[in-house]
Amino acid sequence: MIPIVSIVGRSGSGKTTLIEALVSNLTARGYRVGTIKHDVHGFEIDHEGKDSWRHKQAGAAVVVLSSPSRIALVMDVEREWDPDEMGMFWTGGVDLVLTEGYKRACFPKIEVNLTRESDPWLCAGDSSLEAVVSNWKPSPTLAVPFFLGSEVDRLADWIEERFLGSKSASGCEVRLGDDRIVLSPGEAAALEGAVRSWVARLTGRKAPEIVEIRLGGKVGACGSGR
Amino acid sequence: MIPIVSIVGRSGSGKTTLIEALVSNLTARGYRVGTIKHDVHGFEIDHEGKDSWRHKQAGAAVVVLSSPSRIALVMDVEREWDPDEMGMFWTGGVDLVLTEGYKRACFPKIEVNLTRESDPWLCAGDSSLEAVVSNWKPSPTLAVPFFLGSEVDRLADWIEERFLGSKSASGCEVRLGDDRIVLSPGEAAALEGAVRSWVARLTGRKAPEIVEIRLGGKVGACGSGR
Repeated sequence: MIPIVSIVGRSGSGKTTLIEALVSNLTARGYRVGTIKHDVHGFEIDHEGKDSWRHKQAGAAVVVLSSPSRIALVMDVEREWDPDEMGMFWTGGVDLVLTEGYKRACFPKIEVNLTRESDPWLCAGDSSLEAVVSNWKPSPTLAVPFFLGSEVDRLADWIEERFLGSKSASGCEVRLGDDRIVLSPGEAAALEGAVRSWVARLTGRKAPEIVEIRLGGKVGACGSGR
Repeated sequence: MIPIVSIVGRSGSGKTTLIEALVSNLTARGYRVGTIKHDVHGFEIDHEGKDSWRHKQAGAAVVVLSSPSRIALVMDVEREWDPDEMGMFWTGGVDLVLTEGYKRACFPKIEVNLTRESDPWLCAGDSSLEAVVSNWKPSPTLAVPFFLGSEVDRLADWIEERFLGSKSASGCEVRLGDDRIVLSPGEAAALEGAVRSWVARLTGRKAPEIVEIRLGGKVGACGSGR
């Protein structure tokens, strides 16, 4: 599975600035980073009057904009998706997903406060808090690693060691007809993430250890083929 | 598989206007429609200075913007994707995909010309041309159904009959552990599209009739388990 790490903090605390710095630093190290911006209030994207905007306004459930170098997508959803339901978005291959927000979810969290020394930590006592980034040394009771806002390189080292250290072998097998496809660890992680997210959204439950998907033939033939 | 129909025509011929009308008409009939806008020149989406825009500028390979009612995605690609590689985008469930453009691909095509009577048809002689929409009756040599620009409802009837008539049973089986999951035709079509698109992008070849994906356990155990 692709690791997901949440950058959390109060409004105006420096979350976007920290994500920019981390994305830039990790990308320079050769990693591909995906990000998720959590926007509880809804958002506008695309530009009024453009063809893709007109498709969406007309009622299209999903609009894709495709060019030789970039793809964009806007889709309606009936409820908010959790980051771990978004696995299909990483099938192009990313090594790490950083989320901006999701302080109530239970992904490993890095809390940032670069702007107001007097603000209490949002996630003090949250067992998923793994590090803090601040210009002021936190109280020793916050027993997690501490980084200054200027220490992005040291923080990226820590993220690399903590979350990107070992791509464990996946138990993911793909057969096309009689051929078994050899997957790289990144491909296996991307596929596993996509399938697990699909199962979670379709069935409303977490995918168990073993998931099998079989396409092809008639339904009856499928059943009898096993 | 989810049907893909291309709306093609010269620049300024009325493609976007026809897609708006069709999306609106088919959506009112209860269908969920996805659209793809083909933009060979690249595009800008998102608004300068917004957090998600800043993530992308910093180098994120994929940026997702998530709210309770809408999800948006912007991702870099190394080459242009074909519409049938985009199956994972429809897993939220659509009944039909209309593309704007892709005149060189071989999806069923509807060519539109609502603006210049003198323009020759782009796809005359193209075996994938299935209908034309124009304010001027085409030459009888163009032996495909003809619709006036004002006949959107009749065109939508034709699309419904031609492409949405029968959701054929999919030979798609999913097992979670020991449970076999019952899929609706729409879910099966969405899953099949997603898996086939993933196989096509990963292996560079069209998925054969039979595809099996198995997650879970160790790789060795997977092999011996079959």
